[in-house]
Amino acid sequence: MRKLRIPDVVIRRLPIYLRVLETLDEDVHGGLISSFELGERAGVSPAQVRKDLNFLGGFGKQGVGYQIAVLRDELRSVLNLHKEINVAIIGAGSLGQALARYIIGRRAAERNYHLRLAALFDSDPAKVGSRVGDVVVEHVDAIPDVTRSRQIRMAIVAVPAEAAQRVVDACVNAGIEAILNFAPVKLRVPDGVRLHNTDLSVELMHLAYYL
Amino acid sequence: MRKLRIPDVVIRRLPIYLRVLETLDEDVHGGLISSFELGERAGVSPAQVRKDLNFLGGFGKQGVGYQIAVLRDELRSVLNLHKEINVAIIGAGSLGQALARYIIGRRAAERNYHLRLAALFDSDPAKVGSRVGDVVVEHVDAIPDVTRSRQIRMAIVAVPAEAAQRVVDACVNAGIEAILNFAPVKLRVPDGVRLHNTDLSVELMHLAYYL
Repeated sequence: MRKLRIPDVVIRRLPIYLRVLETLDEDVHGGLISSFELGERAGVSPAQVRKDLNFLGGFGKQGVGYQIAVLRDELRSVLNLHKEINVAIIGAGSLGQALARYIIGRRAAERNYHLRLAALFDSDPAKVGSRVGDVVVEHVDAIPDVTRSRQIRMAIVAVPAEAAQRVVDACVNAGIEAILNFAPVKLRVPDGVRLHNTDLSVELMHLAYYL
Repeated sequence: MRKLRIPDVVIRRLPIYLRVLETLDEDVHGGLISSFELGERAGVSPAQVRKDLNFLGGFGKQGVGYQIAVLRDELRSVLNLHKEINVAIIGAGSLGQALARYIIGRRAAERNYHLRLAALFDSDPAKVGSRVGDVVVEHVDAIPDVTRSRQIRMAIVAVPAEAAQRVVDACVNAGIEAILNFAPVKLRVPDGVRLHNTDLSVELMHLAYYL
């Protein structure tokens, strides 16, 4: 349960602050960072940084700034990053494989990375049995059993548009409550299931408009 | 030059409508779609759909809806999709390779896909000379020359955070005016250069908060 209700618009920015803090060389900064500098690096005004971080409690010292290590730990705590989450990727094409390598690579590089790639699914029998790292591709029919036995809580959907709703339904029925969808289609999920969408094609078209 | 000044918030939605129209089976729909159905599939209210499409001119017929083929062509026109754009991807790791295969694959599948992968760069000599499809990885030092000779107008940046600003500076100096950045860092570009950011790590953390 959330101790404080933090608005989603703020939740979107907290990971950006955390990424900034993770990439800082603490020695260079004497262990401290100002709201001005954190804002500069995050692309947010200093006033907004202070308002956002106020939701976490009294972490800043006026005129001095924030202690990097303390703020980083608190952000990790608020964002539930100390809890390991088992993730499944559905779709073992280029995108799914790239996402799999991304998660496996982060885990290899960071001792306490919070996501664990627990499964990789595909509907193509030719792909089933192949590997990405230590993860073996399994058939989508196994989604319900694998989700339960490996306690998968998040799914990343990297399948073609026409397959996406069916795949999402299987995930939801199996008990998955958080889905990141890369398929270029609007999907339906019940209340209580969190669905986020990202669409590379839309991003590229949006950007190309300005040329 | 834009005939009408369309607000960016609307520009962001036009590609979504186009994606919906592209995935429709026109026969099933008798060549027509209502603002209600387009909105349902796009995740937008019917009223918003109508307001957005009014920026394109008088395309809808009240009570009847929009002609799918006509609206699709007009969206492609407004979004400059009839003009081919040469794209470079910088960074030939997992993400860069996945993006390369994505663009190559779209082009193979769609006769008039508007992006052409003209170059793929990396700083690692071991990667230079390797291929993704027909595209050979070149060294980042070649960005200026290749950008000019192949008239590259858009860059997709898929390099580690610490290398990103340097890479973006090279692109900007070479004349690239549109950049999609995947590195988890805030970048500086001059006025006149369009920079869009996308960060998988931030998306995953945002989503995980809700578990």
